[in-house]
Amino acid sequence: MSVHSVKIVNILEGLLAGNDQAAERNKQRFSEAGVLTINIMSSPGAGKTSLILRTLAAIRDRARVGVIEGDIAGSIDTEKVIAAGARDAVQINTGGNCHLEANMVDRALDNLDLSDFDIMFVENVGNLVCPTHWALGEHLRLCVLSTAEGHDKPVKYPQMFVTSDAIVLNKIDLIELVDFERDFFYDSVRALNPDAPIFEISCRTGEGIPAWADWLLEQRKGVVSSR
Amino acid sequence: MSVHSVKIVNILEGLLAGNDQAAERNKQRFSEAGVLTINIMSSPGAGKTSLILRTLAAIRDRARVGVIEGDIAGSIDTEKVIAAGARDAVQINTGGNCHLEANMVDRALDNLDLSDFDIMFVENVGNLVCPTHWALGEHLRLCVLSTAEGHDKPVKYPQMFVTSDAIVLNKIDLIELVDFERDFFYDSVRALNPDAPIFEISCRTGEGIPAWADWLLEQRKGVVSSR
Repeated sequence: MSVHSVKIVNILEGLLAGNDQAAERNKQRFSEAGVLTINIMSSPGAGKTSLILRTLAAIRDRARVGVIEGDIAGSIDTEKVIAAGARDAVQINTGGNCHLEANMVDRALDNLDLSDFDIMFVENVGNLVCPTHWALGEHLRLCVLSTAEGHDKPVKYPQMFVTSDAIVLNKIDLIELVDFERDFFYDSVRALNPDAPIFEISCRTGEGIPAWADWLLEQRKGVVSSR
Repeated sequence: MSVHSVKIVNILEGLLAGNDQAAERNKQRFSEAGVLTINIMSSPGAGKTSLILRTLAAIRDRARVGVIEGDIAGSIDTEKVIAAGARDAVQINTGGNCHLEANMVDRALDNLDLSDFDIMFVENVGNLVCPTHWALGEHLRLCVLSTAEGHDKPVKYPQMFVTSDAIVLNKIDLIELVDFERDFFYDSVRALNPDAPIFEISCRTGEGIPAWADWLLEQRKGVVSSR
């Protein structure tokens, strides 16, 4: 390992430790306010925003939902989730950064009143690798994979699947068109993560949304009861 | 900016400068051997490997092709490209790293005889963000986007589209099924990158492969003539 590499590993470890502390403070704020917070991670275009929009339509009469939107650039998604019924939403532009960090969420919270919400979605930057290292203060980590990405993604990006508390398999309406091998996918996920629930969903048709929405509302009860 | 951030920016700049030097050495080796080298970048599951497989089928009688496969884990892809007619292929496992770096390609070259090839594909880790910063020694940067990822990706991940020499829009057979707005996509790409050719392709059906393959073989002539 070169001198450069030793230096950067040391500094990255310091940054990650600082991030973990900031994440712990965020989590405490969310928990004290009774706000179930979900860190949504996926490749670009797997359907994070579409999932939030569909979930909003399904639960907005049963829960008050906020959204923190992370993107490298643009504010397309924030406008969409507000239109779909989110109580409030904040856009974080990472300015080139490939993942959200806890201090970005901390700053977003300056613009949100947590007493307004029951559930907070934090949409991470589209990336199956880097976000896994950076806790944000979430109660749940959700991985969204689309059938169009292929059944081999758990083998190629194992850390994402190891660290997720739940997995959404989106674009299930395309499964026959994209040669997605369901058994291969389930076997490889189960080898990495035996317990995380897997929800098969189509954000396009709405298939599978009710079961996912009901599960999510159940998880929120755990945050409230532990206050 | 915190002390941590200043430190890491300085060290990253040092790493990137070192990477650029290693990339320049790689490029010189490729050029001297007359091997056109293409750095293929995309989100996970956009179709980098499928594109290589289809391109191999289209050009293997007209060019000798090698492949350097970058993945965080696994060697699924190397086995596939060898079976499809690549002259040789090397797998790089990045061990968690979210992008390839020039020194990884340098090490891969220890296992390849460049006189065996006319064209070398380097398949990067699936990631629309981080690989843009790390030159590998390529002559061409190719961005592969699939229609299933959505027409808004150039707006959200601009650097990838700014720095690409060519763009493949894959899964064109799904375009009607995924609400992909072609005009929005073209307008936003053209705002970032007026000149890069855009190839509409379906690796599933083979649509669009001949035009892409012919363009690629033309590019190789440039490398040979500049030796």
